[in-house]
Amino acid sequence: MSHTNSVDSLVSVAVPVNPDKMKRYEKFADEIAALIRTGVLAPGQKVPSVRHASRTYGVSPSTVFQAYYLLESRGLILAQARSGYFVRELAKRPLPEPEVSARAAQTSVVDVSELVFSVLGSLKDPNTVPFGSAFPSPDLFPLARLARSMSHAVRELSPHAVIADMTEGNADLRRQIALRYMVSGVMLPLEELVISTGAMEALNLCLQCVTRPGDLVAIEAPAFYATLQVLERLELKAVEIPVHPREGIDLASLEDSLARLPIKACWFMSSLQNPLGASMGEDKKRALYDLLQRHQVPLIEDDVYAELYFGSQPPKPVKSFDREGLVMHCGSFSKCLAPGYRVGWVAGGRYAEQIRRLKLMTTISPSVPAQAAIADYLQHGGFDRHLRRLRHALETQQASMLASAARHFPASTRVTRPAGGYFLWFEFPEQVDSLQLFQLALAQGISLAPGPIFSATRRFGNCARLNYGHPWDAQSERGMEVLGRILASF
Amino acid sequence: MSHTNSVDSLVSVAVPVNPDKMKRYEKFADEIAALIRTGVLAPGQKVPSVRHASRTYGVSPSTVFQAYYLLESRGLILAQARSGYFVRELAKRPLPEPEVSARAAQTSVVDVSELVFSVLGSLKDPNTVPFGSAFPSPDLFPLARLARSMSHAVRELSPHAVIADMTEGNADLRRQIALRYMVSGVMLPLEELVISTGAMEALNLCLQCVTRPGDLVAIEAPAFYATLQVLERLELKAVEIPVHPREGIDLASLEDSLARLPIKACWFMSSLQNPLGASMGEDKKRALYDLLQRHQVPLIEDDVYAELYFGSQPPKPVKSFDREGLVMHCGSFSKCLAPGYRVGWVAGGRYAEQIRRLKLMTTISPSVPAQAAIADYLQHGGFDRHLRRLRHALETQQASMLASAARHFPASTRVTRPAGGYFLWFEFPEQVDSLQLFQLALAQGISLAPGPIFSATRRFGNCARLNYGHPWDAQSERGMEVLGRILASF
Repeated sequence: MSHTNSVDSLVSVAVPVNPDKMKRYEKFADEIAALIRTGVLAPGQKVPSVRHASRTYGVSPSTVFQAYYLLESRGLILAQARSGYFVRELAKRPLPEPEVSARAAQTSVVDVSELVFSVLGSLKDPNTVPFGSAFPSPDLFPLARLARSMSHAVRELSPHAVIADMTEGNADLRRQIALRYMVSGVMLPLEELVISTGAMEALNLCLQCVTRPGDLVAIEAPAFYATLQVLERLELKAVEIPVHPREGIDLASLEDSLARLPIKACWFMSSLQNPLGASMGEDKKRALYDLLQRHQVPLIEDDVYAELYFGSQPPKPVKSFDREGLVMHCGSFSKCLAPGYRVGWVAGGRYAEQIRRLKLMTTISPSVPAQAAIADYLQHGGFDRHLRRLRHALETQQASMLASAARHFPASTRVTRPAGGYFLWFEFPEQVDSLQLFQLALAQGISLAPGPIFSATRRFGNCARLNYGHPWDAQSERGMEVLGRILASF
Repeated sequence: MSHTNSVDSLVSVAVPVNPDKMKRYEKFADEIAALIRTGVLAPGQKVPSVRHASRTYGVSPSTVFQAYYLLESRGLILAQARSGYFVRELAKRPLPEPEVSARAAQTSVVDVSELVFSVLGSLKDPNTVPFGSAFPSPDLFPLARLARSMSHAVRELSPHAVIADMTEGNADLRRQIALRYMVSGVMLPLEELVISTGAMEALNLCLQCVTRPGDLVAIEAPAFYATLQVLERLELKAVEIPVHPREGIDLASLEDSLARLPIKACWFMSSLQNPLGASMGEDKKRALYDLLQRHQVPLIEDDVYAELYFGSQPPKPVKSFDREGLVMHCGSFSKCLAPGYRVGWVAGGRYAEQIRRLKLMTTISPSVPAQAAIADYLQHGGFDRHLRRLRHALETQQASMLASAARHFPASTRVTRPAGGYFLWFEFPEQVDSLQLFQLALAQGISLAPGPIFSATRRFGNCARLNYGHPWDAQSERGMEVLGRILASF
C-alpha cells in the first residue's frame, strides 16, 4: 500500500503524494527518531544542539528547529529551558530484544481455537485495561468525519449502484485503492482488486483458493492467532517458520521447508508482523519472492498494518516484486481508518477471478454503504493527515509502554521495539507461565494476549503480546505496575 | 419472521403489531385476492356487487367498499363506470401450473458453478430487461429514508460500539429482530441470534457447522442456484428432493431418503421457495419438523422471502415448531428493505455458538454502521408500512407478468402462481432448450434464469425463472413478446 507524509496543505487532494517528496525536516526528524528507537540516543540524553546538528548534518538551522519541534510533538524529545532538547522518558535501562524463535516440529495439526476464544471472551468488559485487545483505541479514528462521508455517500447512492456494486465493488473505492498502490510502486490492474468484508474474509478466501483440506501451509512462529484458527477450521496443517523479532521470517528455514515438504501456500505478514512487529527489509522481501517464484508457491501477504509504520518511508510489500501474479496482497481499513465498517481487499494476482467467485458464493459483497463512505472519505476526508496523526500517537504510546515496562517488569524481560503498529511482544523469565499470568491479571482488571495463542504448538508459554494502541494514562501505568508485581511473584 | 398488516397509523411504533389485529376489510380483500390468484374469479369477470357481497359474507357495505378500493390499488380489480368492479387483465386463458418435479438420481456431485457464473455475468448490462435478476427493483425500497437512518445512526455511534458491536452485533438490531420473531409466534432467546453479512453468509456458516466434505445434504429440486454452488464449494453431495409447485417438498420422498441415506442436513426454503414460489402449509411444516426431529437431522431453513407474502397472514416458519434447537432459521433484509447493506441473521438453535465462532473466524462481523442504520429504521422508519406497499407492488406486477405470458407464450406453457415473492417459474414445451433460449434472448437484450442452473443434475432444460420484481412497463411487455417469438421458433 501507498503512504505519504506530504505536508498538511496537500492532503485534501485525492491523489496520494509520493513519499519521496517529503520535506527535508521530516526526513531529518525520522533519522533522529530511529536513533532514539534503536537506543543509540538513550533516554535522558541530550540531542545534538541546533548549531551542532546544522553543521554536522549539512542542514539549515531552521530545518533542525522544525525537526525537533516535530519530534517534541511526537513525544520523543522534551525541551528543557535554556538547556536544549532531551530524549524523553524512554527506558532508563532499556529491556533487551527477544531472540529468533526456535524451529518447531515439521508440521502440526492446529488445535488452538478453544484457547483463543476463551482469551477473546475475556476482553468484553469495557473497564478492563485493554492490553489484550486486537484493535487500537477507536478514539484515534476520525469517526465523526467518516460519519459525514457516510451521510453524503448514502444520499448520493443510486438505487442501481446498491445492487450493481455488490458484484464489482464500489468503483470509486477500487480506483482510490489502486491509486495508493500506484504511488507505493505497485502498478495494479483494476481487475486484480477484490473488495472484501475486512481483510479477514480476503485471507480466508485466498487460502481456500489455493489449498484443500490436509494441505500444508507455511506460517510464522509466533503467528497471528486468527491464522491458526483459520488453518484449524479448514483442516490445513501448519509448517511453522521461525521469525526474527526485527527482520521477520528466517529465509533459510523457509527454503529448507520448501525443498522438503509439499507446501501449498505461505501466509506471512512481511511488514509489522503480528505479534512481533518484525518488518522484512526490501532485499529480503525480494529474496522471499524469488524463492517462492522458484518453487511456484503462492504467497498470501497479510499487510493489514501497512499504514501504521513509524517514520516517513512506507515499507514496500512483497507484492511490489511480483512479476507473475503469485502474491495475494491483503489490506484493510479496519486498523487505520474505519474499524467496524468491515471493508478490506485483496490484490489477488492470478487468483483474483477465483477469489471473486468464492466471495460471491459466501458473503456476496461487503456492505455497499460502507464502501461508498470510505471512497468518499479517501477523496475528501484527509486520509493522509489522519494517518500522520495516528502514527505519531502510536509512536508516542509505544515509548510510554516501553518506559513503563522498564520501570516495572523484571530486568531479564525481553521486548521487541517495532517500527510501527501497536503491539509489543514480551519474553518474560523462563518460570513465567503466561496463561497463568493472563488469569491473574484478568482478576485484577487487566487483559493481555498470552503467548500460546500465537502458536500451533502452544509454544511461547513465557511470552505475551501487549497492546499500546490506547492513549497512555494513569490506568495504563497502574496496569503495568500490577503486571510487574504478578511477574515478580512467579 | 413476524409480519404485520396493521393500519398505517400504527406503523410508526417500534413493536410490530400482531397480524390477528388486522382490519376486517383487509381480511376480506385478501379472501377476494386469493380467489383471483387461484383463478376462481377469472379475468374480466365481475366481482360481487357491494350489496350482494355485504349480504352474502355478512360484512358491512363500507367494509366491502374499502376492500375493493384496496384491491383496485393493488391492481387486481378495475372499476368500470356504472357497472361495478371487474377482475383485471389477468390471463384471458390462464396458463396451467407445472407438475411436481420427478425424482433424481439418489445423490449427486454438484458441478454447476461455471454455468451459474456465465449466466450471472450476463446480467450486468443495465439496459437489459432484467427478467433474469435475483433482486426486485431497488426503486421499490425506501432508500432515501434508510439514508436518513444511516446518517442518524453513524452520528450516534459511540467509538466503543464500533469495536464492541463486531463481536455481538448491534444490540438494538438484535432486539428488534427478536421482537419480530416473538410477534410471529417464535420465542427466541437472544443468544440464538447471530447477525451475518447477509443471509448468504449465515447459510454458509450453518452448513459448515453441521457437515464435513463428502457429506450428504438434502436440497430441493429445483433449488436456488447458490445452494448448489455452496454445496459444490464445500464438496458436499446433494440429495435432490422433488418440490410441488405450490405445496413445497415431497415429504414422502424426503422420508424415504432419510431412512436410506446418511443425510447430515437439510437446506430447504419452506416459504416462497426459490425458484418455484411454493409455500408449505403449517401442518406440513410441523410434519417436516417431526420427521427431522425423529431422525435428528438439522434443518437449515432459508427464509429470505419471508416478508414478501401476499395477503395478510405471514407464513409461519418451520422454526416455530422447533422444540430442541434443531432448526437454523436464516433471514435477511436484502430482499425486503436494504439490498447492498448486507445484513442478515440466523436463529441458530443449538448450533448458535458454533456459528458465531465460525463467523468470527471468517468475516468477524457484518458492517457495524449498516447494522445500526437498519436498527434505527426498524424503530422509526415505518417498516410495516413499507412492506405493505412492497407486497402490493409485487402482487400487481405478478398479475401483469402472468397476463403477459398468457398473451405471448405458447399455449402449452405451464407457470407457477406463487402467493408472494417476485419469481415465476415457467415450464415450456418439451422441445424448448432454455439455455439456448437464454442465449437468444440475451442477444435481444432480455435476461432470464434458465432451468438447469437450478439443478445439481442439470435438469429443467425446458424451464426458466422470470423476475417480475420490476415495475411493469412497455419494455417488460416487449420483453415478453420477444420471448414468446423465440419460444415459438423452437
